[in-house]
Amino acid sequence: MSLLNEEKINQERVTIGGKKQARKTYGFDEISLVPGKITLDIDLCDTSFILGKHKFDFPIIASAMDSVVSSYTAVEINKLGGLAVLNLQGLYTRYENYDEVLNKITNVDNDSFVPLMQDIYKEPIKEELIKKRIQEIKSHNAICAVSVTPNVANAYAKLIQDSGADIFVVQSTVVSIEHKSNDKTNCFDLKTFIENTKIPVVVGNCVTYDVALEHMKAGASAVLVGIGPGAACTSRGVLGIGVPMATSIADCAQARDEYFSKTGRYVHIIGDGGMSVGGDICKAIACGADAVMIGSPFAKTKEAPGNGYHWGMATPSPVLPRGTRIKVGTLGTLKELLLGPARFDDGSQNLVGALKTSMSTLGAQNIKEMQQVDIVIAPSILTEGKVFQKAQKLGMGK
Amino acid sequence: MSLLNEEKINQERVTIGGKKQARKTYGFDEISLVPGKITLDIDLCDTSFILGKHKFDFPIIASAMDSVVSSYTAVEINKLGGLAVLNLQGLYTRYENYDEVLNKITNVDNDSFVPLMQDIYKEPIKEELIKKRIQEIKSHNAICAVSVTPNVANAYAKLIQDSGADIFVVQSTVVSIEHKSNDKTNCFDLKTFIENTKIPVVVGNCVTYDVALEHMKAGASAVLVGIGPGAACTSRGVLGIGVPMATSIADCAQARDEYFSKTGRYVHIIGDGGMSVGGDICKAIACGADAVMIGSPFAKTKEAPGNGYHWGMATPSPVLPRGTRIKVGTLGTLKELLLGPARFDDGSQNLVGALKTSMSTLGAQNIKEMQQVDIVIAPSILTEGKVFQKAQKLGMGK
Amino acid sequence: MSLLNEEKINQERVTIGGKKQARKTYGFDEISLVPGKITLDIDLCDTSFILGKHKFDFPIIASAMDSVVSSYTAVEINKLGGLAVLNLQGLYTRYENYDEVLNKITNVDNDSFVPLMQDIYKEPIKEELIKKRIQEIKSHNAICAVSVTPNVANAYAKLIQDSGADIFVVQSTVVSIEHKSNDKTNCFDLKTFIENTKIPVVVGNCVTYDVALEHMKAGASAVLVGIGPGAACTSRGVLGIGVPMATSIADCAQARDEYFSKTGRYVHIIGDGGMSVGGDICKAIACGADAVMIGSPFAKTKEAPGNGYHWGMATPSPVLPRGTRIKVGTLGTLKELLLGPARFDDGSQNLVGALKTSMSTLGAQNIKEMQQVDIVIAPSILTEGKVFQKAQKLGMGK
Amino acid sequence: MSLLNEEKINQERVTIGGKKQARKTYGFDEISLVPGKITLDIDLCDTSFILGKHKFDFPIIASAMDSVVSSYTAVEINKLGGLAVLNLQGLYTRYENYDEVLNKITNVDNDSFVPLMQDIYKEPIKEELIKKRIQEIKSHNAICAVSVTPNVANAYAKLIQDSGADIFVVQSTVVSIEHKSNDKTNCFDLKTFIENTKIPVVVGNCVTYDVALEHMKAGASAVLVGIGPGAACTSRGVLGIGVPMATSIADCAQARDEYFSKTGRYVHIIGDGGMSVGGDICKAIACGADAVMIGSPFAKTKEAPGNGYHWGMATPSPVLPRGTRIKVGTLGTLKELLLGPARFDDGSQNLVGALKTSMSTLGAQNIKEMQQVDIVIAPSILTEGKVFQKAQKLGMGK
Repeated sequence: MSLLNEEKINQERVTIGGKKQARKTYGFDEISLVPGKITLDIDLCDTSFILGKHKFDFPIIASAMDSVVSSYTAVEINKLGGLAVLNLQGLYTRYENYDEVLNKITNVDNDSFVPLMQDIYKEPIKEELIKKRIQEIKSHNAICAVSVTPNVANAYAKLIQDSGADIFVVQSTVVSIEHKSNDKTNCFDLKTFIENTKIPVVVGNCVTYDVALEHMKAGASAVLVGIGPGAACTSRGVLGIGVPMATSIADCAQARDEYFSKTGRYVHIIGDGGMSVGGDICKAIACGADAVMIGSPFAKTKEAPGNGYHWGMATPSPVLPRGTRIKVGTLGTLKELLLGPARFDDGSQNLVGALKTSMSTLGAQNIKEMQQVDIVIAPSILTEGKVFQKAQKLGMGK
Repeated sequence: MSLLNEEKINQERVTIGGKKQARKTYGFDEISLVPGKITLDIDLCDTSFILGKHKFDFPIIASAMDSVVSSYTAVEINKLGGLAVLNLQGLYTRYENYDEVLNKITNVDNDSFVPLMQDIYKEPIKEELIKKRIQEIKSHNAICAVSVTPNVANAYAKLIQDSGADIFVVQSTVVSIEHKSNDKTNCFDLKTFIENTKIPVVVGNCVTYDVALEHMKAGASAVLVGIGPGAACTSRGVLGIGVPMATSIADCAQARDEYFSKTGRYVHIIGDGGMSVGGDICKAIACGADAVMIGSPFAKTKEAPGNGYHWGMATPSPVLPRGTRIKVGTLGTLKELLLGPARFDDGSQNLVGALKTSMSTLGAQNIKEMQQVDIVIAPSILTEGKVFQKAQKLGMGK
Repeated sequence: MSLLNEEKINQERVTIGGKKQARKTYGFDEISLVPGKITLDIDLCDTSFILGKHKFDFPIIASAMDSVVSSYTAVEINKLGGLAVLNLQGLYTRYENYDEVLNKITNVDNDSFVPLMQDIYKEPIKEELIKKRIQEIKSHNAICAVSVTPNVANAYAKLIQDSGADIFVVQSTVVSIEHKSNDKTNCFDLKTFIENTKIPVVVGNCVTYDVALEHMKAGASAVLVGIGPGAACTSRGVLGIGVPMATSIADCAQARDEYFSKTGRYVHIIGDGGMSVGGDICKAIACGADAVMIGSPFAKTKEAPGNGYHWGMATPSPVLPRGTRIKVGTLGTLKELLLGPARFDDGSQNLVGALKTSMSTLGAQNIKEMQQVDIVIAPSILTEGKVFQKAQKLGMGK
Repeated sequence: MSLLNEEKINQERVTIGGKKQARKTYGFDEISLVPGKITLDIDLCDTSFILGKHKFDFPIIASAMDSVVSSYTAVEINKLGGLAVLNLQGLYTRYENYDEVLNKITNVDNDSFVPLMQDIYKEPIKEELIKKRIQEIKSHNAICAVSVTPNVANAYAKLIQDSGADIFVVQSTVVSIEHKSNDKTNCFDLKTFIENTKIPVVVGNCVTYDVALEHMKAGASAVLVGIGPGAACTSRGVLGIGVPMATSIADCAQARDEYFSKTGRYVHIIGDGGMSVGGDICKAIACGADAVMIGSPFAKTKEAPGNGYHWGMATPSPVLPRGTRIKVGTLGTLKELLLGPARFDDGSQNLVGALKTSMSTLGAQNIKEMQQVDIVIAPSILTEGKVFQKAQKLGMGK
């Protein structure tokens, strides 16, 4: 037992210099899943995901980003069996007619993108539009999940619930346990907020055991895990901040398991960011996630508001823009993305089919079993051989 | 002894996060072979490989893929001293005149490739074509190895043996020890199958000690090792699944050695996938393989059915296409590929000559000795220096 | 305690071969910062930096390089709250009218750059220009920091102080504890020099605990840390010399902490080189730096003397040119670089805002707290996925 | 002491899979040199290298390759203070007028290169040309070093010595301790050969402690260390064979030190291959080499026979061509390469100046002290940041 502990310590911490120590962490590109003794027929694999009283066919949630979820796409995703989160501080609650704004964003050149976003976000948020967007979703009998940042969560809480929202997401880049501010109104008390809220509250993002555990203790129904890894996120370059997803998810899943064993209450871990293909989603769950939140794959669908572009929600910052705009192109429909059939063979479509196939290959009957499959460290570093193969695929070389 | 065990544990497992541990694994790009005290004249190096009662001049087997092995190429490879496996669920048993189908595949554009393959595979398999293809091979007195997936192995077993096949390969992406299904007819019992089959049965693919050992206990004559590493395989991106070859082979070779020491029966380990040059084949054997199965190098020969293209057998999946089509080009003849002389100096030709030269340099007189040569961890990562050298080779830069 | 020591040893040294051991070191690309339990309002974050009696708004110093700091830019940077160091052995003290010389440098082609620089530096340094440049800075009431190499420090010491300089930087690629020379006049005694100098003396560069500690004992007010990592530095290719910054800074910060605990005197550690974006600066401080010195980001400003080019100060060596000229382009103003607002979202602008945002996200109220934040090892190696993302950003691929 | 041993074992061996273990090895790209407490004036640094009774100004030897050393360049290199080895089984002893052959080689297209080389090497070696080439060198009072492969060493030994050669190099890709052959005349006995040879004998290549030690016991004056790392070598791709240089040199240097402490005889370790810039040479010596042998840097000089091309000596193999032809271009003169002044700042010129500058920076007065400098593990992996810097240097991007 004590030997095992030492081993764990040996593996986890290195000395950078002086007395500065750091833990070794892992991302999806460094791990891979291993088939074991059992395989399953694909129809035995259950991918369903339950949040509060709502059951979804699969544990894939569309991100609360302007380029990913409008009230229209929220409804469409729900029809296919999934969940989408509408950001209530983005374009859709600032502009009645957002189509022309979206057109401006997708037509601007790269150098003018940040100033344009800063300009667009000067328009204030309108309460009537918050109500309208929620009702647009509810009018189609879809599950309505909406997100706001902690600093405005209390202000909009009543309006959001009264408008009929089903799930309340409180999300910013980092939600800590304690926020220090000279302005007392700026201090968000998650525990009190949740106690006063009648619908399930999802909170994030965080990356560590401690913070995830505190969010659970505060009553969160689910915790969003992931800082820095998203395709449209530049936190690591700008702020030096970011934790690889495999480690973040495994740490927070550990908090969930210990909290569950002590309290009997199961709080979902939702991996958020850094996943672009089916294999990444399978790895996130194998690391311990109950569900994932993804942005860029949705941004590539025909139904996406971004018209083939994808951008981060930190971009509009008037002082320190941090997201970036990526031309992701348009690959296919929402249905092809989620349920297939896939027209491409690179893992970019039929994400649910990929998850089920992976589960059947790994012998996992449901998400809880998928969280237990065997993982190996197998870095997919760019070797000479891979560059050569890649070049061949692209038709380069002899 | 106990110290050695601790060391082994230390090297093998790291903590990803929480209590999630993972083993560190190795691929061919991360290892290299080390010359020792002895060298040999090349004519002292014996590369022969025996499977059942059949002896081959070298341990290199052509993959059961449409772009690699037709009945024609199976005969030609056999004439050169090698073994090829014909896939009985591919084009050749669906179409009497497959040349026009092959032409369609090689002429289609990249975006239409997957739908075309899905369409082509709608044509059912015909029993008379199974019989015909086997007899085409046997009529030239060639050793005939054929493959089917486990779910149809029983259905075709009698036909295949009656038609004269010499070696029976039961192969799918992953063959586990226990397959769970609601449909009882879908459960393939390997042990019973092998007991009822008169010719040697090769089974795969697997990647772990446990599964390889169970296949051996079930009576397999050889086990195919490798999931996810092939050039035309995208399992890792789509499903998150894959184990680096050096580790897979070494683990399964360990199962072989222990099974042999207990039973006296020697079951071959055949490394399958992820090898494109002579050096990879040498490394596979040094890791413990008795033979290798390769696809893309054969697809580059003038005799290959793929006309300079290579594609995976998982591509036609109507729901989740997973292989991909690579333009591999046509480098030379089958004879140049296997026996040389090589017209290129990059390890893409004269694979048998490369193996013999490597064995003579490393002092290995036969495959069993080659399995014992010294290996080092020496990642061929893409360094700045290597990029510069590569650029120079391509005539770039100043 | 003894266990901790063993662990430290285990992590730090590997055997290259024979008895040759080497320590594992870390650069900024291999680490990342981790948000913890506390976050702060950004206006609670104090980035001020005090050197001698001079207080600066932020701990970012412009490098003593021709392409970065002229007397004009030194004044402008000071107006914005920062510090710049003027190199007294560069162009500005060799040429009265340096504009035409700068034009020559930025207009020359790559192959002629080194010979041109060697030619330009044949012009001797003029004492009246040393005086003039210092007075140009002081005439605007700016803090004046100037640098010379150790071998001429004594010769120019009186002139520099008499001309009104506020901070004396003694800098060369490597400043050791003991320099051996047949020419006794070539041996610079740092301790005696500092005793005879009335203004604060900054010394560097060094990379190790021992040398940093000796510089502190000799009386240095700050120690420059960094050998080999700069964007315009080619020491590693030419000389094989260089130590990754995260390790260098952490080691020297350890010397600072131990020296402080014994003497009560606090000597600043200034990370110098290898930082190009805000995230790198945040990481340098998290590793233990009190401030950073950067060159290339300043070279990209409209006010920079280099006109969109940046080059190292080792380039003019008549025998062994070592720096290189990089076309860095012109991104924006000095104010945008330091204080924002950023027009780009890649961390290249608003460095102070980035530092404050990172501190607020990590819960650090000042630089000393920022030196304590949690670091993880998280290599940003170029994976296949990242290459794909990068290609998408650049509009490549499908 | 026993703890230290365990640590060493821990660092050196990992388990690939099963019971297959492998040692972790290191190349030049993974290490870097660290300045210490002492620096030196450059004129205190002595780079001289003594082999037998011959003293050279610097420890850099030109490789025995057709594209690197002709009798003319051997003389020119000797005039500059260095040593070059002429290959007696290459072009120069097969063709009286080799200029037209060299022209053919440099004018052929890439695809026809290997067949052309195979054709050119069909011409037999002529004894009169061996004599003539040696005498061409000796007629200029230059030190004459020549190389042959072990299998012909005895046959040409008398002719070579009688013709006046000063140093005898017995070299092939791998020279083991025991070569097994059915043809007894094919077994080269190094010990007997050296006893019968009056001039110093250099032997190689090898990469391990054991083999280096046996060569020393057999009487070698120097041992060539390096298999697989050269710029024009493709052994790793073709044969899977190769050991990173830092580890090879350190291991063989250990054999030298132990052999010296037991016998008092000092046998030089010459690092051969994989070095392209000054920094690599500095690292080779820091790892324990007494001298280095390099090819491609010499091939880039105006005096080189290869006219801007460089190719390996294994290329002409009629069966398994293994070297490759690289267009290296022509950068400058032999004098610029070795003694400078450098016209480029990337370490490609003034190799002796780079070595001296590195020694002065690291405080090493001679090669023996340079072998003791501090090394760190600091992989120069291709990070996103470096790719960005590289792109900037090349004028790409914004």
